[in-house]
Amino acid sequence: MSAARDSDKYATSAHYGGSGRISRAADRRSLTVEATFSLRSEVRLVTDVFAPTTPDLAEVYRPAGRCAAIVDATVDRLHGGALRAYFAAHGIPLTTMVCRALEEDKTFDTVRRMAAFLGGEECDVARDEPVLVVGGGVLTDTAGLACALLNRRTPYVMIGTSIVSAVDAGPSPRTCVNGTLIKNAMGAYHPPVLTLVDRALFRTLAPEHLRHGVAEIVKMGAVDDEGLLVLLQRHGRGLLETRFATTGEDRGLAAIADEVLFRSLYAYLRHEGTNMFETHQDRPHAYGHTWSTKFEPVAGLLHGHAVAVEMAFTATLATLIGWLDEDSRDALLEVCRDLGLAVHHPVIEDLELMRVAQESVRRKRGGSALWAVAPRGGLGKCDYLAEVEDSLLAEAVDRHRVRCAGFPDGGAGLGMYLRDARWS
Amino acid sequence: MSAARDSDKYATSAHYGGSGRISRAADRRSLTVEATFSLRSEVRLVTDVFAPTTPDLAEVYRPAGRCAAIVDATVDRLHGGALRAYFAAHGIPLTTMVCRALEEDKTFDTVRRMAAFLGGEECDVARDEPVLVVGGGVLTDTAGLACALLNRRTPYVMIGTSIVSAVDAGPSPRTCVNGTLIKNAMGAYHPPVLTLVDRALFRTLAPEHLRHGVAEIVKMGAVDDEGLLVLLQRHGRGLLETRFATTGEDRGLAAIADEVLFRSLYAYLRHEGTNMFETHQDRPHAYGHTWSTKFEPVAGLLHGHAVAVEMAFTATLATLIGWLDEDSRDALLEVCRDLGLAVHHPVIEDLELMRVAQESVRRKRGGSALWAVAPRGGLGKCDYLAEVEDSLLAEAVDRHRVRCAGFPDGGAGLGMYLRDARWS
Repeated sequence: MSAARDSDKYATSAHYGGSGRISRAADRRSLTVEATFSLRSEVRLVTDVFAPTTPDLAEVYRPAGRCAAIVDATVDRLHGGALRAYFAAHGIPLTTMVCRALEEDKTFDTVRRMAAFLGGEECDVARDEPVLVVGGGVLTDTAGLACALLNRRTPYVMIGTSIVSAVDAGPSPRTCVNGTLIKNAMGAYHPPVLTLVDRALFRTLAPEHLRHGVAEIVKMGAVDDEGLLVLLQRHGRGLLETRFATTGEDRGLAAIADEVLFRSLYAYLRHEGTNMFETHQDRPHAYGHTWSTKFEPVAGLLHGHAVAVEMAFTATLATLIGWLDEDSRDALLEVCRDLGLAVHHPVIEDLELMRVAQESVRRKRGGSALWAVAPRGGLGKCDYLAEVEDSLLAEAVDRHRVRCAGFPDGGAGLGMYLRDARWS
Repeated sequence: MSAARDSDKYATSAHYGGSGRISRAADRRSLTVEATFSLRSEVRLVTDVFAPTTPDLAEVYRPAGRCAAIVDATVDRLHGGALRAYFAAHGIPLTTMVCRALEEDKTFDTVRRMAAFLGGEECDVARDEPVLVVGGGVLTDTAGLACALLNRRTPYVMIGTSIVSAVDAGPSPRTCVNGTLIKNAMGAYHPPVLTLVDRALFRTLAPEHLRHGVAEIVKMGAVDDEGLLVLLQRHGRGLLETRFATTGEDRGLAAIADEVLFRSLYAYLRHEGTNMFETHQDRPHAYGHTWSTKFEPVAGLLHGHAVAVEMAFTATLATLIGWLDEDSRDALLEVCRDLGLAVHHPVIEDLELMRVAQESVRRKRGGSALWAVAPRGGLGKCDYLAEVEDSLLAEAVDRHRVRCAGFPDGGAGLGMYLRDARWS
């Protein structure tokens, strides 16, 4: 029996669809169901999202009659006034929960408190009512998970205030908290129904946060869009210095900033958005995210620098197996170094740690292969390593160490440690 | 761009599929993704699941090379020996976490502890490795949620040891913990990949647990399968007395027990299984689950008795609006009373509580309608009430009170309070 539904009369929410089929075994001892779920997610570039003349938020929350929001504590300090003024100007009641969102807050307890706010007396958010989430990567991970759990899936609108949350963690379906053994191990696939990307918000980012966020854009260029990498080669430093063309009046650079964000989002979504439930592991986006899952916390690196170190190391590994020529590897190192991103850290010379990372990620990716991403056939393209043998791992680590020993700073990044990061 | 995948080379798990499409707006300011997820779930009747000659569990866990299991504490006491002997006989290593699973344990903390077990050093369950869950309704809700969160969806095999977990909560996609305002408010849709239903396990159930579990079978009969209701009319008491034909040698009754379970599972899955993500609210299964969400905890009723009280009350309401004739209503009351299920409780005369329940459920169901289920056009069929006005609610409550005042016990059930329940 099929139960395709030709009417939306009984739809739980306009955001989500589903159907299924059931079959009965002839012996009346077994039933099999095949079920599908579908969703729609939009990512939109906007300018000055909290200016009362910008219609996007009002168009979502006027029909709902109110807005329940979870806002990062630092973001609230910097932009909370503008956010409240926006909703006041539109006459839409706003209830906010202000949350600290550091890496150490990626816990079930944070999610429980957010869910208690959204599902408690003060808000009692309806199942089809979009929550508003405003903040960086940790907030989208945790508040996204709270929305995923509330009523078993409540929609939300995301405003990413950092580079990472705007182009990566924000539109991402991966909501999470940290597990016992592995970062981000517990969570749900639950993308925002709408992600608003406003680079005006980047104006208040600390240089350290801007820089490490750009690593994720370098990543998409390196394995999916060489044109994006070329834009970063030419304009990356200018974008960092002007905080994505928000501190000056350079219109040309503003257009380039938008183009960089759009290309980055497209590269992200054409792979991740079409694999929203991570049912497949051919994910360019996982470049820089295999060994770093273990060495990032051990070395105390900012995420983007850890990713950059792995990208650079994997490019060297790719030269050893004939996937990449040394000139291309060096071009990637140069882009990273020009942006102040780390390309080497002694932590990767701990081969036992690197092997533990492989085993852990293998289990996390399922299907028993490693599927480490590496550029292949030039920058802007990639392939997947099903296995990295101990001997190849050791050789690549050593070769990369030697390559980076030539840099006066040994391949270090600017402000690459967590302890260096501060908010402006 | 469409990303339909023609190869399973990179599949994360054999259990889940997905694909998606992305489109770019011409102004390069917006990207829209449509993504789908698909899963397969089987429910199988088995006999003596822990007898070493029964192949089902070994067929799943021999390829995996081991089994990580979460087992209800009471079930472990009654069946843990058989479970361990089964895996020992097949030479498959078994690691178990034994959990208390009372209603008060439906918390994030329980789920966090289960996830720490599954994702910690002892197990480090791989993303595509099915966990085994053995227990009743609360255990399937919480352990199912722990599996949903682990690696953002880890498959599990369910063995329901109570009637409710075998025919309802077990194969259900609804995993959950209790929220601040409403029962089961937080969770995820995550059905088992395989549910094994073994009525031999019912032999150790307390009569109170058997009886209230049968209420969910009455429910499916009342709104979806009149034949099932007829089977219960004829054999319901016999099934209760023999604990689903497990205490005697009556082969005919054993066949009827299997038929009752199969029909109940089919009625459940042809609606719930084809609506696995609850994207639609035309759910016969919600019969008895609107007002009871509030009056069940207030009155301290066992779930099945609360459901039966609401079924009976809603049948009376259905007579008032011309959906059901009084003879059919009385036939339903008779089936319930014959099984010892409550058909009335004074708690429903608290109209304010009933109204609060409506508002709460309305928000929970989304889409702003109530969609309360009631039989229509005879037993075995149903329809959905978009709204129940205060005046109709009051009239139905009064009419039902008067109808049940005629019963010597006022419509009470046998051992209907939570405090009456005990395990044998």
